[in-house]
Amino acid sequence: MEGYKVIFHINESEKRSTVLANVNNLIKDLGRDNVIVEIVANGYAVIDYVLEDNEYNETINKMTSTYKLGVRFIACRNSLVGNKVDEESLLSFVTVVPSGVSELIKKQSEGYAYIKP
Amino acid sequence: MEGYKVIFHINESEKRSTVLANVNNLIKDLGRDNVIVEIVANGYAVIDYVLEDNEYNETINKMTSTYKLGVRFIACRNSLVGNKVDEESLLSFVTVVPSGVSELIKKQSEGYAYIKP
Amino acid sequence: MEGYKVIFHINESEKRSTVLANVNNLIKDLGRDNVIVEIVANGYAVIDYVLEDNEYNETINKMTSTYKLGVRFIACRNSLVGNKVDEESLLSFVTVVPSGVSELIKKQSEGYAYIKP
Repeated sequence: MEGYKVIFHINESEKRSTVLANVNNLIKDLGRDNVIVEIVANGYAVIDYVLEDNEYNETINKMTSTYKLGVRFIACRNSLVGNKVDEESLLSFVTVVPSGVSELIKKQSEGYAYIKP
Repeated sequence: MEGYKVIFHINESEKRSTVLANVNNLIKDLGRDNVIVEIVANGYAVIDYVLEDNEYNETINKMTSTYKLGVRFIACRNSLVGNKVDEESLLSFVTVVPSGVSELIKKQSEGYAYIKP
Repeated sequence: MEGYKVIFHINESEKRSTVLANVNNLIKDLGRDNVIVEIVANGYAVIDYVLEDNEYNETINKMTSTYKLGVRFIACRNSLVGNKVDEESLLSFVTVVPSGVSELIKKQSEGYAYIKP
């Protein structure tokens, strides 16, 4: 087996805990080496990637070891600009792409499953 | 033609009527023998599968004949545990899987379309 | 490259600006000739396609040139009937299909990516 690939799409900030819980459960179920996960945030949800001293940041930091093993955090630049979020303020492991929507399309064309929590 | 396959993803209880209406319309449009439908509930939406004397249960029971012909109702065990729902309390035709998210990924890798109502 | 194909699914009227912004950003990013876009409205969202003198209509009319180059606006007939919307009242470039859900499934089977804003 080549392993599974999935993109989680988040555009509503209130879904952030759900997404992280989903990813944790997923990796627990399939095993770290059997799934590549990408979390694509666009719209207002990009503010979740801002480095702040809060519970979400703690949770996401706890996932750092997981992140190293195949969880990618992606932010949409259009949405960062639209929500006046400075790229410098993002958590260190977040990758910025020009368009979150393009990213979602490209990844699906590469065989990633799509999940909108 | 081999027929179509689709997973409906529901994680919000208030979307339950929409999902059933969608499935009914879909089967009416494509024909019972031309589509395989799976409804995957995770998050709080798993409570919709609890056997109770209510309108939703009536509707879903009316779909029993449909269910026999290619509609599968799936509940996520992580979500059942998280929402303190006993598996014994579920409608008889519901199938429990270890992880709803894994189910959504696996089915997409088998060529199922994904719809989030 | 053959180009990308994507369906946007909208079933909530309040998401209409988001969908149009997504489509604009997408075409800006990938280029008009490199992506085919279809916006499928079902549920209550079909009312967005009604011809009225409002801001949404203005925005959507500004997209007419874009539409000519690969953006299709689709309405679900089941939803039009369910929401008592007369097909004659729709914007001129909207195409009505028997079932929005079937459209979403068929297009995915043809390789379209799915995005739910």
